[in-house]
Amino acid sequence: MEHVTKFRTIGPTTYLCPIPAVMLGCADPEGGAPNLITVAWTGVVCSKPPMLSVSIRKSRLSHDMIARTGEFTLNLTSRALCRAMDFSGVKSGREVDKFAHLGLTPQPAPGLRAAPAVAEAPAFLSCRVRSVQELGSHDLFLADIVEVSVQDRFFLADGSIDEAAMELVGYAHGKYFVLGEALGFFGYSVASPEALERRGF
Amino acid sequence: MEHVTKFRTIGPTTYLCPIPAVMLGCADPEGGAPNLITVAWTGVVCSKPPMLSVSIRKSRLSHDMIARTGEFTLNLTSRALCRAMDFSGVKSGREVDKFAHLGLTPQPAPGLRAAPAVAEAPAFLSCRVRSVQELGSHDLFLADIVEVSVQDRFFLADGSIDEAAMELVGYAHGKYFVLGEALGFFGYSVASPEALERRGF
Repeated sequence: MEHVTKFRTIGPTTYLCPIPAVMLGCADPEGGAPNLITVAWTGVVCSKPPMLSVSIRKSRLSHDMIARTGEFTLNLTSRALCRAMDFSGVKSGREVDKFAHLGLTPQPAPGLRAAPAVAEAPAFLSCRVRSVQELGSHDLFLADIVEVSVQDRFFLADGSIDEAAMELVGYAHGKYFVLGEALGFFGYSVASPEALERRGF
Repeated sequence: MEHVTKFRTIGPTTYLCPIPAVMLGCADPEGGAPNLITVAWTGVVCSKPPMLSVSIRKSRLSHDMIARTGEFTLNLTSRALCRAMDFSGVKSGREVDKFAHLGLTPQPAPGLRAAPAVAEAPAFLSCRVRSVQELGSHDLFLADIVEVSVQDRFFLADGSIDEAAMELVGYAHGKYFVLGEALGFFGYSVASPEALERRGF
């Protein structure tokens, strides 16, 4: 008898995993405290020009701040930042100054006027909003990636970046997981034995 | 002297990580072999209705298949499927029948007419295209998630799903990593000790 994989349906739900869970930094157009929120509804949407999307509920303080300033940062989450990232996703900037409460350091973001980055993040992306679309519960912001900054200490001697050392966090159906073993690189399934060895696989 | 984090800029690039690397299944509107491609330019864009985006180059065979049929599946990548997923991203369906070559089994996807899922995937999403937008190198497809199917064997006795057991793969700047240690759950930074213990953290 042939083996048949059995599936169970769970209804239409946002079960894409793993996905990013990153901290978005934005500036107050009135000159007040900057804000941090966590976004998991984000993804790359274009290579040339480099663009990404973030989706945010209209009711969020950051929605207004991003719509009015037209810019934000996305700060990658390391294992050490996981708890702060979670906190940024459950508390509103209306209640608490999250940078101050979490002991995080606002850092100027190259290419942006005012939106702060998180100095403790292993890397961050400077983003400028291109368009906003209403989808339902969330509005979709499409943004240009105008610069990327990576902490000095993650560069290897040959100039490449050691993402494994960042201990990055991914999100899967309500849970956070740190990245584990590296399985390969883009193209490894058709790479020569020499290329595999050179890349350490 | 205050500690100052040093960053190095690497230019505007798609350095969001980790991101998904999933296999997209689509049907040939002419009744030929279905196709598989790998997409990393994908993300959730809305909760209600549940929607996601995928971005695909116009030159890709699958672009035409998805645009004409209006549907596709996204199949999550487990450790065991990582090599097949990489292969699907580097070879074109014009050269090779990827399901056959990779020994993967097309599986009907609930809610769709013809786009096949991958029976070996731990879970898959059935998606129907709502709109297409030109961005540059890639076109952005926004799609409704119409159903989600999860392999029976990943359900725990209480009806929850054991994502850790799926050994899901994330993508970070050209490299594939399997998810490792679970660090917490959404809201764990403000959860009661009882909730933390109940959830096993």
